[in-house]
Amino acid sequence: VYTVDVPLGPVAVFAASNFPFAFGVPGGDTASALAAGCPVVVKGHPAQPRLSRRIAEILTAAVADAGAPEGTFGFLDAESTDGDPNKLSIELVQHPAIKAVGFTGSFGGGRALMDAAAARPEPIPVYAEMGSVNPVFVLPGAIADEAGREKWAQTLAGAVTGSAGQLCTKPGVVFVPETADGAALGALTGELIAGTAPIPMLTEGMAAAHRRWQEQITGASADAERAGKPFAAQISAKEFAGDYREEHFGPATVIVRADPAEYPALADSLEGQLTATIIADEAGDGDREAARALLPSLMAKAGRVVWNGVPTGVAVVEAMQHGGPWPATSASWSTSVGTEAIRRFIRPVALQGVPADLVG
Amino acid sequence: VYTVDVPLGPVAVFAASNFPFAFGVPGGDTASALAAGCPVVVKGHPAQPRLSRRIAEILTAAVADAGAPEGTFGFLDAESTDGDPNKLSIELVQHPAIKAVGFTGSFGGGRALMDAAAARPEPIPVYAEMGSVNPVFVLPGAIADEAGREKWAQTLAGAVTGSAGQLCTKPGVVFVPETADGAALGALTGELIAGTAPIPMLTEGMAAAHRRWQEQITGASADAERAGKPFAAQISAKEFAGDYREEHFGPATVIVRADPAEYPALADSLEGQLTATIIADEAGDGDREAARALLPSLMAKAGRVVWNGVPTGVAVVEAMQHGGPWPATSASWSTSVGTEAIRRFIRPVALQGVPADLVG
Repeated sequence: VYTVDVPLGPVAVFAASNFPFAFGVPGGDTASALAAGCPVVVKGHPAQPRLSRRIAEILTAAVADAGAPEGTFGFLDAESTDGDPNKLSIELVQHPAIKAVGFTGSFGGGRALMDAAAARPEPIPVYAEMGSVNPVFVLPGAIADEAGREKWAQTLAGAVTGSAGQLCTKPGVVFVPETADGAALGALTGELIAGTAPIPMLTEGMAAAHRRWQEQITGASADAERAGKPFAAQISAKEFAGDYREEHFGPATVIVRADPAEYPALADSLEGQLTATIIADEAGDGDREAARALLPSLMAKAGRVVWNGVPTGVAVVEAMQHGGPWPATSASWSTSVGTEAIRRFIRPVALQGVPADLVG
Repeated sequence: VYTVDVPLGPVAVFAASNFPFAFGVPGGDTASALAAGCPVVVKGHPAQPRLSRRIAEILTAAVADAGAPEGTFGFLDAESTDGDPNKLSIELVQHPAIKAVGFTGSFGGGRALMDAAAARPEPIPVYAEMGSVNPVFVLPGAIADEAGREKWAQTLAGAVTGSAGQLCTKPGVVFVPETADGAALGALTGELIAGTAPIPMLTEGMAAAHRRWQEQITGASADAERAGKPFAAQISAKEFAGDYREEHFGPATVIVRADPAEYPALADSLEGQLTATIIADEAGDGDREAARALLPSLMAKAGRVVWNGVPTGVAVVEAMQHGGPWPATSASWSTSVGTEAIRRFIRPVALQGVPADLVG
C-alpha cells in the first residue's frame, strides 16, 4: 500500500482587503490550490477593484501560457455584482462544482461562508482566517534595564505601526509587568507609537473603524483623516475586557499592566489566536520558569509562538503555521502560509497493489 | 522555526454498531484521540449495550492504572437515555468542552452530528464515516478462462458474505463485462453467494433492513429470520440507479453487466466511496490500457483503490487511507484507520525561536 495525493476539485478563494498580494487574488490560497491541482475561482476584494482585476488578467494569461486547461483560473469581479457582493460570495460557496473554500477576512464574513458551506447538500471545507489580537507577554527580566526597555519599546512600536497596523499578525495586546519597569516600558512604547508619522490606511472603511476605536479609547473625537493616528491604550488587567480583546486594524495597541504570575490565567482567558509572543531575558535565568509556566497556555491558544521577537513577519517555510484555534481560523489543523498550505486542498488516496506505472 | 503537535481537546466518539471492537468503544477513534493527548467521551452503540459497558469498565480501569488524569476516558451509556439516544448525541456534540467528533455509522446520523457541530458558537470538526458501496470493476482479461472466473467468483463471494456482509468495505456493487465470460462470472458469483450458509446478523434492525432489501430485489417475501439470507442481484448498467447505488448491510451484492469501455463513466457517476477495486489480468497486457483509463476516475471517487484483491481487509499501516469523498466521509483529507488517524485530533504549533528545553 502506498499513498498519492489528489486535488479536492475547484476551490473558491476570497481575497483579503489588507494584503492585496500575499493574501489577495494571487495569494497563498490561490497558489496552494493551483499547486494542488485544483482550478481556482477568486473573488476580488472590493477594496482593490482595479488591482484585483489587473492581477487577474496577468494570472489568466500566465495560466494560459503554461498550457493549463481553460478554466484553471477564474476571477469574479466584486464590482460587477450590482452592489451585493455578499450574495455573490454565498452563491459561489453554494455552487455544486466548488469543493473547498479559502477565505481571509472578518469574523462575520468567514462565519457566513462557513454556514453556507455546512448547509450544502455536500458540505465542503472552509479554510477561514478571521483575525487575532496576537498577545505579547513581556517578562520582567527582559526589561530590567534601560537598554532592554528601549529595545523592546522600539521593536513593539515598530510592529504596531508598521503597514499602518493592518497586518493580521499585529500585536494588538501587550502584557507588561505591573512594576516600575513595566510602567516605564508601557509609557515608552506608547510614546514611540504616538510619535510615529501617520500613514494612510488601505481603505476609508478601515480608517473610519480606526477612528471609532481611537474615539472609544481617548474619549475625544478624531479628525476624519485617511491616515490612521497611531496610539496606545494603557489599561490594567482588570479593565482587559470587551473590545480590548477584539482585533482592531490600525497603528494602535492595548498595553495591559498585569502580574506576570497571572499571565497563564490571562492567556487561558483569551480566544484562539494566530500567534502569541513571549519576551524574556535571553542571557539570564530570571524569566525561565515564568516562560516555562506560560508556554503551555500559549500553545493551547495559538498556532505560532514567538520567542523574543514580534509576530508580524511570516516566513514561507515548511515549519510555518499560520493558523490557530477558533475564532482565529475555522480549521486549526491547517495553515494558510508555508509549504504545508497545499494540504488543505488535497486528500490522500491509498493504492493497494496498484502497479505504479498505471498511476498518471 | 519548528513545529510540535498539540491535542485539540476533549473528543466525542460515537461507536459503530457493526464493528464492536475496531470501530466501537475501544476503536480507532478512541485510540487515536487518546494517543493524540485528547480526553475521550464515548457514546456506546445501543446495539451492544452490555459489551460496550463492559469494555468501558475495562478502559476506565486501564486509563486509571496508567496514571492518566481523572476524566481522560468517559462513557455514555446509550441505554441510560430514557429512549432518546439521539438527543444525548446532539447534546454531547453541542457541549462547549468538546473540540472534535469521531463517528462511524449511518448517513443520517453523521449528517445530524455535522449540522449540530457546524451550528455551534464554536464550530468543531466532525470526522464521520458514513458508508460506501465499494464498487468492483472486473476487466475482461481477468476472467477470460475458467480458472480466473472461479478464482474471482470465490474471492468476491467470500468478501460479500464474510461477517454477514456487515463491513463498511463490503463490495456492494460488482461491474462485470457484458460478455459471455462476464455473464458466467456473474452467475457463478451469484451461485456461490446464494450457497453460503446464512449467519445471524448483529442486530434485529440490520436483519430487518436486509430482508426489506431482499424482498425488493427478489419480489418475494422474506422469512423473519435473524440470519441474513445471502443473495446477489443481477442487473444491467441501465438498471443501475436508485437503491442499487446505496449501501446495504448484509450478505448481498449487486452485479452489474456493463461495457468495460463505459466503466470510467460509470465510476464518474458514483458518489464518494471508501474504496474502489480493479480486477485485471495480472500476467498479460490485455487489461492494462482499460485499467489506466479507469484509474483516474476511481482515484477521484475513493479513498483507497485496490488492485486484484477485495476491499474488505483494512490494514493498520502508515499508508492506509480509510476515508473518501463525500458522502463516504465528512472529511476526505483524514483517515479513521492507520497511524495517520492521529492527525484528525491534533494541530501543529510553530515555535519560532522558543528554546527547546522549555517545551514540556
